[in-house]
Amino acid sequence: MGKVAIIGVGHSKFGKRSDASLRELAFEAYRAALGDAEIESKTIDASLVCSATHYDKQRSPAGVINEYLGLNPKPTFNVEAACASSAVGLRTASALISSKLHDIVAVVGVQKMTELPNEEIQELMGRAGDVMWESPFGTTMPAYYAMYATAHMSRYGTTEEDMARVSVKNRAYGAKNPDAMFQKPILLEDVLNSRMVSYPLKLFDCCANADGAACLIVANGEKARKLSDSPVWVAGLGLASSPMSLAGRNGPLTSFEVSKKAARTAYAMARIRPEDVDVAEVHDSFSITEILNYEDLGFAKPGRGAKLLKDHETELGGKTPVNVDGGLIAKGHPVGATGASQIATLVHQIRGEAGKSQVDGAKVGLAQNIGGIGMYGCVTVLKA
Amino acid sequence: MGKVAIIGVGHSKFGKRSDASLRELAFEAYRAALGDAEIESKTIDASLVCSATHYDKQRSPAGVINEYLGLNPKPTFNVEAACASSAVGLRTASALISSKLHDIVAVVGVQKMTELPNEEIQELMGRAGDVMWESPFGTTMPAYYAMYATAHMSRYGTTEEDMARVSVKNRAYGAKNPDAMFQKPILLEDVLNSRMVSYPLKLFDCCANADGAACLIVANGEKARKLSDSPVWVAGLGLASSPMSLAGRNGPLTSFEVSKKAARTAYAMARIRPEDVDVAEVHDSFSITEILNYEDLGFAKPGRGAKLLKDHETELGGKTPVNVDGGLIAKGHPVGATGASQIATLVHQIRGEAGKSQVDGAKVGLAQNIGGIGMYGCVTVLKA
Repeated sequence: MGKVAIIGVGHSKFGKRSDASLRELAFEAYRAALGDAEIESKTIDASLVCSATHYDKQRSPAGVINEYLGLNPKPTFNVEAACASSAVGLRTASALISSKLHDIVAVVGVQKMTELPNEEIQELMGRAGDVMWESPFGTTMPAYYAMYATAHMSRYGTTEEDMARVSVKNRAYGAKNPDAMFQKPILLEDVLNSRMVSYPLKLFDCCANADGAACLIVANGEKARKLSDSPVWVAGLGLASSPMSLAGRNGPLTSFEVSKKAARTAYAMARIRPEDVDVAEVHDSFSITEILNYEDLGFAKPGRGAKLLKDHETELGGKTPVNVDGGLIAKGHPVGATGASQIATLVHQIRGEAGKSQVDGAKVGLAQNIGGIGMYGCVTVLKA
Repeated sequence: MGKVAIIGVGHSKFGKRSDASLRELAFEAYRAALGDAEIESKTIDASLVCSATHYDKQRSPAGVINEYLGLNPKPTFNVEAACASSAVGLRTASALISSKLHDIVAVVGVQKMTELPNEEIQELMGRAGDVMWESPFGTTMPAYYAMYATAHMSRYGTTEEDMARVSVKNRAYGAKNPDAMFQKPILLEDVLNSRMVSYPLKLFDCCANADGAACLIVANGEKARKLSDSPVWVAGLGLASSPMSLAGRNGPLTSFEVSKKAARTAYAMARIRPEDVDVAEVHDSFSITEILNYEDLGFAKPGRGAKLLKDHETELGGKTPVNVDGGLIAKGHPVGATGASQIATLVHQIRGEAGKSQVDGAKVGLAQNIGGIGMYGCVTVLKA
C-alpha cells in the first residue's frame, strides 16, 4: 500500500444527544476534523459514511450525510462492519487513496441510537448475530459476551473483580474526557453491586448505547506532507472474519480469532511487535472483552490478561496504557462512530496533544475493533 | 489505478426465490462465479457483500455470508449504496486490489426482498429518500421517479408510449434470459393498459422487487493474466452524489446529475467517448429512467432519448444496444445484486458468450447504476 496519513480528526460529544439528528452529529465531527486539519471542505474528494443499520429511520445514510456536509457531487457510500464500521472505513479510504482514485477522503463514523426503546435495541443487536441459528434463541450482545466471560473464568480463573477493574480504570479516564458519556469515576464495589445483566456481566461491565460521531481526514503521502505539520501515518491495517454463529467457531470461547488474525496482519504490515505499541485503544464493549483483547493482541499471554490490570500495566505509566480516553465503557458506544473515535484518540496521543491522558512520548498507537459478536476484527497501527 | 480485471462472474435466478435464503442466494452466485473463473475458493483473498439494508432480518450480512461461502478468516465487510451497491462494490474491490491489500476479491451482490409485504417494501424504499424532509410526505420510489417522468414529458414532449417502448424492448430480451424474473414478452398495449402506480408510471413501467444474487471475481493484472484466458478489464470507474432530497437539487427533474458526473469520470478514466460503447446496461428502475439515462450518458442529446427507441438504436443491431439481458424491468431488481448483474452481463458480452443476445464484436461495455432516488450514480466501463 502507498503512504497514507491522517491529517485531521474530529469528535462529537457522545451520549444521549436529543439535541442533534444523525446528520447533525456527523456534521459536528466533520467540522471539527476540517478545523483540526486546517482545510476547507472543497479540499475533500470523497466521503465514506460508516454506520450500523436500523438504529434510526434513515436508510443509506451516506446520501443524506454527504449532502448535509456540503460534499455533493463528490463520491460517497456506506461502509458497514457492525461495531468495526469506521475502522474498516479507514482501511477502505486508505485503499481508495493508495489506488489513486482519490487524494483526500473523509471517513465519517456516526450513530444515533437513543431514540429507540432499549428492548428494540437489544433485539436489533441480536440480529447482528446469526438470525437463522442463534438470535431467535435470545442471544443478545450481553448474552453472547457473557459466554466468553464464563469460558474465560472457567479456564483461567478470571474473576468478576478482575473484570470490574477494567470498568474502574476506564471510567477513571473517562472522567478526563469531555466527549465521554460518563464522566464520573466509579469504584470496584459500584461495578460488583450493579444489577446483573447477563451473568457474570453486570450493568457497569457493559458499555452503553449512545449517539455520536467521529471523523478522520485521510490523505495520500504527498498531500499529507503538504497540508499538515504532524501527519499520523497509517502503518498497519488488519481485517479478519470469524463465523457469525458461535456454534461455527473452533475451540473454547476464551479468545477472538479475528483479533489475533487481524493483529498478525497489522503487526506484519507495520513491522512492529506487540511490545512496540506505546498506547492502545481496544474494544471494551464489555469489561471481559478488554481482558481477552490484551491476550489476543499479544499484550499478555493467554489467561494472563487480568494480571496486567492488577499490575497496573495498562494504565498511564504502565507498559501499554489502554483506553486512556475512557474506552467504550466510559465514552459510550455509538456503533458506527467507535472505530473512528479510537483512532482519533490515537492521533491526539501521537501528536502529543492528549493533555491529562497523554502517554509520554507515544509514537506508535494501536486500535482494535471487534464487529458484532466477533465476526469482524479490525486492527489499525498508526505511527508518528 | 493499477490494472484490475474480472476473471469470473456468477448469477442466481432472479425472482421470488422462496426456495433460498439470503446466504443460499449468495452461495448460488458465488459458486457459479468460481466455476466460471475455474478457481477454488481458497484462491479468494476477501469478499465484499453488497446489499441494501432492512429487506430481511439479517443485519450486517457480510458476517453470515462470508461464513456460508467458507471464506473465514478472510476479510469481509458490507458496501452499500442503495441500488448501486454492488457496482460500488466493484469499485471498492478495484481499490483494495490496486492498493495491494488484496490480489483477488469476490464482490457478492445479494438481496432477499419478497418475504416482506409490499406496503412495507414501499415504506422502506421511501426511507432511502430523505426521512426528515421527504419520505414522510409519501415519496415512495414510483412517486419519486414519476416526478422525473412528468418533468420530462412537460419539457420535451415525451409520451407514455415512448416509455412503454422501454418495457416492451426489455421484456423481449428478458424472454431470452433464463435468469430473468419475467420471461414473457409484452406488447405496447399491455404496458399502456396496466394499472396506474403513480402517474404516468403504470405497473409494466416499473421493475419488480426480487430475490437474487450476482458475483464478480476481481483480480489484479498479474493474477488475471495467469488465471484467465479472457480477463475483462475494469477501464473506467465513476461515482458521484446528488442531494438525497429532490428539493436540494438544481434545475428541472429531467436528468440525473449523478449519472452525467459519474459518466464523465468513467469516460475520462477509460479514455473513451459515448459512441465507443458497444453494449450498455443502464438502470431501468422505471421505463422513464432508461430514457433519461440515454441522455445523461451521452447516447442521445437532452430530450432526444425517446427518439433512440423509436429508431431502434438501443436494440440488437442498433447503434448502442441497451439492456439486452432484459434490464431491471425483465430481470427484476434485487437491489444489492443489480449492479453486479449488469456487470456480469457485460462480461459475457465482451467474452462473446451472450448467445441469442450477443452484440456482434462487443469490446467495450458500460454499466450505469442509480442509487435510490439519484443520490448515488455509478458508471463502470469494461474493456476486452
